[in-house]
Amino acid sequence: MNIKVSIAYKGSNYHGFERQKNAVGIQNVIEDALLKLTGETTDIIGCSRTDAGVHARDFVFNFHTETVLNPCRIVTGLNHFLASDIAVKSAEIVPDDFHARYSCKGKEYEYIIFNSKNRNPFFENLAYRYGVLIDENLLKNELAAIVGKHDFRSFCGQNGYRENTVREIFAADIKRAGDVLIITISGDGFLYNMIRIIVGTLLEINEGKRTPGAMADILNALDRRKAGRTAPPEGLYLNKVYY
Amino acid sequence: MNIKVSIAYKGSNYHGFERQKNAVGIQNVIEDALLKLTGETTDIIGCSRTDAGVHARDFVFNFHTETVLNPCRIVTGLNHFLASDIAVKSAEIVPDDFHARYSCKGKEYEYIIFNSKNRNPFFENLAYRYGVLIDENLLKNELAAIVGKHDFRSFCGQNGYRENTVREIFAADIKRAGDVLIITISGDGFLYNMIRIIVGTLLEINEGKRTPGAMADILNALDRRKAGRTAPPEGLYLNKVYY
Repeated sequence: MNIKVSIAYKGSNYHGFERQKNAVGIQNVIEDALLKLTGETTDIIGCSRTDAGVHARDFVFNFHTETVLNPCRIVTGLNHFLASDIAVKSAEIVPDDFHARYSCKGKEYEYIIFNSKNRNPFFENLAYRYGVLIDENLLKNELAAIVGKHDFRSFCGQNGYRENTVREIFAADIKRAGDVLIITISGDGFLYNMIRIIVGTLLEINEGKRTPGAMADILNALDRRKAGRTAPPEGLYLNKVYY
Repeated sequence: MNIKVSIAYKGSNYHGFERQKNAVGIQNVIEDALLKLTGETTDIIGCSRTDAGVHARDFVFNFHTETVLNPCRIVTGLNHFLASDIAVKSAEIVPDDFHARYSCKGKEYEYIIFNSKNRNPFFENLAYRYGVLIDENLLKNELAAIVGKHDFRSFCGQNGYRENTVREIFAADIKRAGDVLIITISGDGFLYNMIRIIVGTLLEINEGKRTPGAMADILNALDRRKAGRTAPPEGLYLNKVYY
């Protein structure tokens, strides 16, 4: 039986999703919980890697199992064994060929910036605190440049270099609510650190270190060195996974 | 010199604001931080008690000091010594007769309900998870009954019984945003557990255990036993303190 599971997690205490040998990945604790629940040693397939400290409102994995437990029992059973910073939202039986990574049609990410010089205990580890006042209209124009099908090599972290760096961005927007800014980006796929480098570059434009219109030029350069810094992980949320 | 300080805190790890002997109150850690910063043993005066697990977006205290540090240095210095779940927002010199509790003209509280049967790691300890679907229009009418000057004896926890249980509620409202409900109540003062008993009573009306219109009858009864349960602390936020 192939089971598709949707979870949400606060990534602060984990070294990303992937199983780690000398650190705790989300995958480690879920496979441990599955072992307790089903008695089976399982190799779960995640929809993507996420970096240490990155959060997910909706992360999908699948696993093949001989268990007789129905999906409802898998949800409550896993939640019983998991810490409060990981929640299982749903589980369903899917066709055998469903693969959380290969079957994925797209994803939506959100990057939350707490635009303030002051500490806020409620955003600790849950948003990137950034003290320079953000001009969201300026950044909205920059974001427009990445929408569509492009080669995103300039926005790919070096550890994740791949032959094919072309991705399609469906939508990219920035919205302010008081001193909170939310950058939402959806696309058919994302390169290693891509969102965080896009956000870091936007912040350098905001700081006047780059001229307006820079995003389009950086995209065309196909060179990671032309883009800006990598924004920290604590602002990043995987919001939705499309199949 | 009399200093007025505004802080925000996540109350989950503290036994309320007040100094405790066998547990850690917010007051303990702030007085410890002040000792490190100024070398003085201080008895700070808080604007109110808050229960264990209750949060504050804006909590005010004052203290008398001989320190030569200016208010700006007090903010950065205290933040340096405090854990990330308490943030000092501002400090200012005030007249000698300013008293965080007695000078207070009113407060605004917020109670956040995550109206869902499912766990959500981002609301853990930060909202009350409640599975029965809330009819916010029904509860809005009930809240209208408490606005104005009333004797709130029915909504006073037994530990906090006082001679004078008359308080004025300036405004009381409930708003939904998706599966999050926010109840906002402001007034000139609040009795022990008053907001939590009001919320618990609203939830019993929502559950059909009491008839619509019950709030006005309970208020008139002047009897704690007529009101509903005390809602849990993790949904409660002290939002603003008025002087």
